[in-house]
Amino acid sequence: MDWIADYFAHPERYPVLSQVKPGDIRSALPAEAPEHGEAFSAILSDFERLIVPGVTHWNHPGFFAYFAITGSAPGVLAEFLSAALNAQGMLWRTSPSVTELEEVALGWLRRLMGLPDLFEGVIYDTASISSLHALATAREAAVDRVRTAGMPGRPELPRYRVYCSDQAHSSIDKAVILLGLGHDALWKIPSDAEFRMRADELDLAIAEDRRAGIVPMAVVATVGTTSTTSVDPVEAIVAICERERIWLHVDCAYAGSAAIVPECRYILNGVERADSMVVNPHKWLFTPFDLSAFYCRRMDLLRQAFSLTPEYLKTTEAGAVKNLMDTGVQLGRRFRALKLWMILRYFGAEGIRARLSEHMRLARLFAGWVDGDPDFERLAPVPFSVVCFRARPRGKDWSEAGLETLNQRLLDAMNATGEVFLSHTKLNGRFTLRLAVGNLRTEERHVARAWELAKTLL
Amino acid sequence: MDWIADYFAHPERYPVLSQVKPGDIRSALPAEAPEHGEAFSAILSDFERLIVPGVTHWNHPGFFAYFAITGSAPGVLAEFLSAALNAQGMLWRTSPSVTELEEVALGWLRRLMGLPDLFEGVIYDTASISSLHALATAREAAVDRVRTAGMPGRPELPRYRVYCSDQAHSSIDKAVILLGLGHDALWKIPSDAEFRMRADELDLAIAEDRRAGIVPMAVVATVGTTSTTSVDPVEAIVAICERERIWLHVDCAYAGSAAIVPECRYILNGVERADSMVVNPHKWLFTPFDLSAFYCRRMDLLRQAFSLTPEYLKTTEAGAVKNLMDTGVQLGRRFRALKLWMILRYFGAEGIRARLSEHMRLARLFAGWVDGDPDFERLAPVPFSVVCFRARPRGKDWSEAGLETLNQRLLDAMNATGEVFLSHTKLNGRFTLRLAVGNLRTEERHVARAWELAKTLL
Repeated sequence: MDWIADYFAHPERYPVLSQVKPGDIRSALPAEAPEHGEAFSAILSDFERLIVPGVTHWNHPGFFAYFAITGSAPGVLAEFLSAALNAQGMLWRTSPSVTELEEVALGWLRRLMGLPDLFEGVIYDTASISSLHALATAREAAVDRVRTAGMPGRPELPRYRVYCSDQAHSSIDKAVILLGLGHDALWKIPSDAEFRMRADELDLAIAEDRRAGIVPMAVVATVGTTSTTSVDPVEAIVAICERERIWLHVDCAYAGSAAIVPECRYILNGVERADSMVVNPHKWLFTPFDLSAFYCRRMDLLRQAFSLTPEYLKTTEAGAVKNLMDTGVQLGRRFRALKLWMILRYFGAEGIRARLSEHMRLARLFAGWVDGDPDFERLAPVPFSVVCFRARPRGKDWSEAGLETLNQRLLDAMNATGEVFLSHTKLNGRFTLRLAVGNLRTEERHVARAWELAKTLL
Repeated sequence: MDWIADYFAHPERYPVLSQVKPGDIRSALPAEAPEHGEAFSAILSDFERLIVPGVTHWNHPGFFAYFAITGSAPGVLAEFLSAALNAQGMLWRTSPSVTELEEVALGWLRRLMGLPDLFEGVIYDTASISSLHALATAREAAVDRVRTAGMPGRPELPRYRVYCSDQAHSSIDKAVILLGLGHDALWKIPSDAEFRMRADELDLAIAEDRRAGIVPMAVVATVGTTSTTSVDPVEAIVAICERERIWLHVDCAYAGSAAIVPECRYILNGVERADSMVVNPHKWLFTPFDLSAFYCRRMDLLRQAFSLTPEYLKTTEAGAVKNLMDTGVQLGRRFRALKLWMILRYFGAEGIRARLSEHMRLARLFAGWVDGDPDFERLAPVPFSVVCFRARPRGKDWSEAGLETLNQRLLDAMNATGEVFLSHTKLNGRFTLRLAVGNLRTEERHVARAWELAKTLL
């Protein structure tokens, strides 16, 4: 407890990106478990001495990589309580609070985002699993008797197609592979100059597939893509899906929380007509990893795809209560709703809006510095809290390869300081630095320091 | 912290099975998140007042339902540290300690169980996900180009078959459905009088399928089935799988830990020749939920099925390091290895052996009481720490329906006391009570009290 309080007070005493070499941690530890038990104090001391140096500090205010996240204090305490209770939510009776608090907390979040109540929610571990369930339900709707008869050895079945943009997250690729549709069944629709799916191209692709006898199964739109946080035109996409009767899943894993801020409410326009959506409170809602909130208008179909009750799990309340095990492939469920409930209460709607707005202000500030500097260029719009940019020093005729070398070197130099950690992406083949703001401890001075480092290390 | 210390000192002050009615928790809570933030003390007080009454106490020494489990103190503290660090293990660099400590802790567990080092391990959340990955890898091996081309719309593909016993866990059913093979592709081999898969029946089923042009894809054997903890004859099964070149996955989710006890080492005989196995430290190794350890001899094939690196996750160490995201469908990974490492050190091999042996002694003791009482009967052998039994009062010619009513009433009466919580199953159509020992706090007096209640409430 003391260690944690001290750590939370000063996470910046550690380098943000761990400086160990591959194998350092492993080789510092014995190959066999001890024969005799040890005191917890000895274990904790080894934790500090051997394990902490190999930790990349996601709590550091200079963590600007991927999507910067925060496990806030009320969330961490809730995880502690949840681990102590060790309640397992597979059935209502194995802890009624797990099932019912999940319903309540997801209802709160749904209303904060302005999503209608006809979306039923369920908590999974990750967006990978949420989107997997979305596409599994789309498959249940599209493929006759898939639950019992499966897909191989059925010559009567056509090929199917799932569509997403070329900016969609890799979890969609993995879901399509796992579901047995094959990676070729995933069609990546080109995006426009601002990295948003082109609805006209989606329309064309669907028409072309239908002509070729390929059956469209699902479209995955993204609100807040991973590279640039671009927002697909969900209203145009949902109109196509409604007309064509295709399942629409919207991946709002990172940006969905932003809909709590009134100026960003528009980002979910059209999502109320989608079949399912996912938002991850562990990304931009101060929740310790892991907690993915999945909302679906056809949870009955999801249950039809997966519910299956062996005798040893039958209960006498059946019918009157919801059993979480019916809503997916994982039987066991941690008590994750506790942290979401505590966090929403601790910050309140007001506190969440203020913090998300501040993160967006810091990102716009950084973007302004980039725009105003002739040696740098911005490579994408900044709708939320992520800035895509690169160095392009004036006075030289740069090749793409030269810019990649220069920016990779700049990125490595910035990360080697231990003061900041940024990650990269590629946009239209251009090597791009990403500055992602999302940590509760990040203040203007940290963003300013990142900019200073970028300029001085160039 | 104080609340948890107090709770751990006296979990038996609460009824083990929550006594709330459906809807009680939900209706005690507002439908909207608060506008203004609240003090943590107010939230904690509501937690005690509103949430705890709806918790079924898995920590209670009278918890004898399903598989009784324990989140031990070092495990709970490790979860607290893990939540505080909020480290995400998708890539080696996002916290080298997450990747490398996972390798070390899984190596310790593998050696404690006597499994050869050629099994590579990975930590997932649940056995449902572990077994899903096992069968996905078996599919990768069996179905030509399944990753890219998928299965529908390919008339050249045959039907496939997965085999398990009629006692196997429902997660196998769900995995087969999710993978798109269809529930009909799962063939349940009859078990013998002691609930073990009949290897001769497996042999016949495979031969018959081959004659019908159905391709055997995988066999799932179980060491410690859910209803009776029976152990399938893995040596006979693995011989068949080797001869027929079929993937063998062994579900040791509950009982695998028992192999740490020398007298139980035999239960994994043959597993060293299997392709994959799963054991859940969150079941019988004092680990707070969730932590499932998956071991595989063909992790290369699993990576071939799933690895996929978008640009924004490419790192310069690639090749030299292992990135956990390549080993499965979930991109994000919690720092779960920390609790396994701390638990193995805290108890030591000796401490684990002593506690598991004691649980098995208590189960045998209870079984002896059942066997010695003319009003009760035991319905399955007791290889580990679960006793299957029922009341069958002498002097009456019972029908099965009459015995079911009697025993359901007895079960409800025992659970209504709040002192114990047992669950049930059906064995050959017979309604069966299960007493599962697995909690660190369970002593002989608690098992004796369960027996006393069974006798007095009959």
